[in-house]
Amino acid sequence: MNKDLIINALQKVREQKPLVVNITNFVVMNNTANALLAVGASPIMSHSKQEMAEMMSFAGALVINIGTLDSVWRPGMFFAVEQANENNKPVVLDPVGCGATKLRTSTARQLAELADNLIIRGNASEIIAMAGEKSQNKGVDALDSSEAALSAARSLVEAYNCCVVISGETDYVVNNEATHALSNGHDMMPFVTGMGCSLSAVTGAFAAIGETTGLAAAAIFAIAGEIAAEQSKGPGSLQMNLLDALYQLSDEEVLRRLNIKEC
Amino acid sequence: MNKDLIINALQKVREQKPLVVNITNFVVMNNTANALLAVGASPIMSHSKQEMAEMMSFAGALVINIGTLDSVWRPGMFFAVEQANENNKPVVLDPVGCGATKLRTSTARQLAELADNLIIRGNASEIIAMAGEKSQNKGVDALDSSEAALSAARSLVEAYNCCVVISGETDYVVNNEATHALSNGHDMMPFVTGMGCSLSAVTGAFAAIGETTGLAAAAIFAIAGEIAAEQSKGPGSLQMNLLDALYQLSDEEVLRRLNIKEC
Amino acid sequence: MNKDLIINALQKVREQKPLVVNITNFVVMNNTANALLAVGASPIMSHSKQEMAEMMSFAGALVINIGTLDSVWRPGMFFAVEQANENNKPVVLDPVGCGATKLRTSTARQLAELADNLIIRGNASEIIAMAGEKSQNKGVDALDSSEAALSAARSLVEAYNCCVVISGETDYVVNNEATHALSNGHDMMPFVTGMGCSLSAVTGAFAAIGETTGLAAAAIFAIAGEIAAEQSKGPGSLQMNLLDALYQLSDEEVLRRLNIKEC
Repeated sequence: MNKDLIINALQKVREQKPLVVNITNFVVMNNTANALLAVGASPIMSHSKQEMAEMMSFAGALVINIGTLDSVWRPGMFFAVEQANENNKPVVLDPVGCGATKLRTSTARQLAELADNLIIRGNASEIIAMAGEKSQNKGVDALDSSEAALSAARSLVEAYNCCVVISGETDYVVNNEATHALSNGHDMMPFVTGMGCSLSAVTGAFAAIGETTGLAAAAIFAIAGEIAAEQSKGPGSLQMNLLDALYQLSDEEVLRRLNIKEC
Repeated sequence: MNKDLIINALQKVREQKPLVVNITNFVVMNNTANALLAVGASPIMSHSKQEMAEMMSFAGALVINIGTLDSVWRPGMFFAVEQANENNKPVVLDPVGCGATKLRTSTARQLAELADNLIIRGNASEIIAMAGEKSQNKGVDALDSSEAALSAARSLVEAYNCCVVISGETDYVVNNEATHALSNGHDMMPFVTGMGCSLSAVTGAFAAIGETTGLAAAAIFAIAGEIAAEQSKGPGSLQMNLLDALYQLSDEEVLRRLNIKEC
Repeated sequence: MNKDLIINALQKVREQKPLVVNITNFVVMNNTANALLAVGASPIMSHSKQEMAEMMSFAGALVINIGTLDSVWRPGMFFAVEQANENNKPVVLDPVGCGATKLRTSTARQLAELADNLIIRGNASEIIAMAGEKSQNKGVDALDSSEAALSAARSLVEAYNCCVVISGETDYVVNNEATHALSNGHDMMPFVTGMGCSLSAVTGAFAAIGETTGLAAAAIFAIAGEIAAEQSKGPGSLQMNLLDALYQLSDEEVLRRLNIKEC
């Protein structure tokens, strides 16, 4: 049962406090580190080749986010994925702005090609662009519905033998065996920068304890966001309340709110 | 009428959701992205030459902030301004720490020289130093009154054929045709880092929809800050409440609070 | 008396508003700048060799934090410490993740070796690793008790002729003359990223006004954190409330809560 999977995964994260290595963008480093701490994991932000082999030998997972990509950090991302592969650790890829520029699109695809054990977490426009379909994206905000990205997600699952999470009004969690639709969350969430990035980081924590489909992380994060938004009068409050909600989230609250179905 | 200009500009930003490209400092990336989202715009943080030509072809405006300047990022700033020029897009320059070091002063002036369609947004010490007058600045916080920067602002308007916004207890918005004094805001605002940087980013959103004087952005931001500070017991709350206030701001509240006069 | 030292130091920071130059990690730049502003100091984040000599000529202190270390920023850290030495300014070193990788351990030691006037502020695992003892650390979170780091701290005091602050459930402030135990703070604090980094930054402000033992900063910060946590339902609120508490902190509140003893 999905409900058990989700609850058990949350308990495992809190008990095992997995170390998650993040090469992420400058905009969201603070938020993603705090989201990982709030959910019970131990974040480390690191991008130097000089320490990545050591890092990946004791880390539980690697999260790569291409949000402020440049030629200085790019090689470190590939090196980190190689180290994750060598240590048999899962990789979460957040293809921020994929489709907006050639640099981002090609880098996202090359990283996905390289990773052995991969979860891709993006918004609809990014997933569509990554699969080579036509997205309406011009920046980093989604301009396509998450449903419109379902066939693209299935292409990515096949092309990279990976799991895909599409964030949006409805989240879709797609893998070789099933597709789940999650209807939790809140429409104020896109007004806070880095919500998707934080979900990607949290997905790394769940992957580190063996939940490599992305489903549990997507459910936990959307439910926490939903609770937080209900208590918030705007995106400033929401950013703060989200961390409190992740920290406080009880099994009962998850079970009560979870709105999931298989498609 | 200025009141109509301000209200109409806010409505346009919310309707058109302009994409604003930011090369900004590491300290404020999160806040400035969130300020842009809260006011209704779509932020993207990018600094790589490899994607800047594409970015500026579909963006509405460019914001350059020299807050954590170095020799790695500096060339990307000049390249981005060239791309903005080629695409006929407005550039907002935030000369953070201008006057504190030669690197910042000379870089700010060279960027201003290069930009065709320019708004400079700084504190009094930065504006004074940029114009070559004697400021009391040693760091990034203003040690001069905004009124003392008026003649410097007028020099910059002439030198670079630009608009200038001086932030301070009173904000001054200076261009070839007029000078306006804005008496909104709150004296707790300087206790939050990056308030000026966030205003610069928001100025980019308004420039993108055609309000290139800086007046509407300065008014909207100061009023949101004033509302937020009245609800805050300290700078932590203020940072959060500012985003909520930008998100919730109504035309009526703007009209009720707006305290502007032509000098 | 320690109580007088702490109260007087806080008053001096608020009156003199010392300029503190920070080369710090990308995760915490915003928080540490805000903590410095909230306590009354003036932060500047700068890492470029091109401006560091000027910066250190008028700054009150230098804070070096190796949290997102790489080969691009590393040389700037050494250059900055040299400039601090030349200008006879105190240096605060935060050895983030020391022990987790060779790069961090060796860089921390080399920086400590170089600095003439040094305060080291770290968690127990970092202090233990820096002294060459066996820590349990694998990431950036402490896995050792602060008491277990006391002998390591004393080794560092001797090796580098410095002061050491160990953060943890009990904070220890160790120097050539005495060791103090501080029992303020709150166990929710480790769930917010960069709490230690913010303390290191604030330690720089106090060092700039002549309180170079680290004691006053550790006491003020722990008491502010304690007040903030009591008002917070989770780490999101705590991050916000901490800045409010630092801003609002009264002498009476410090005196009422201070829980210090000499060991």
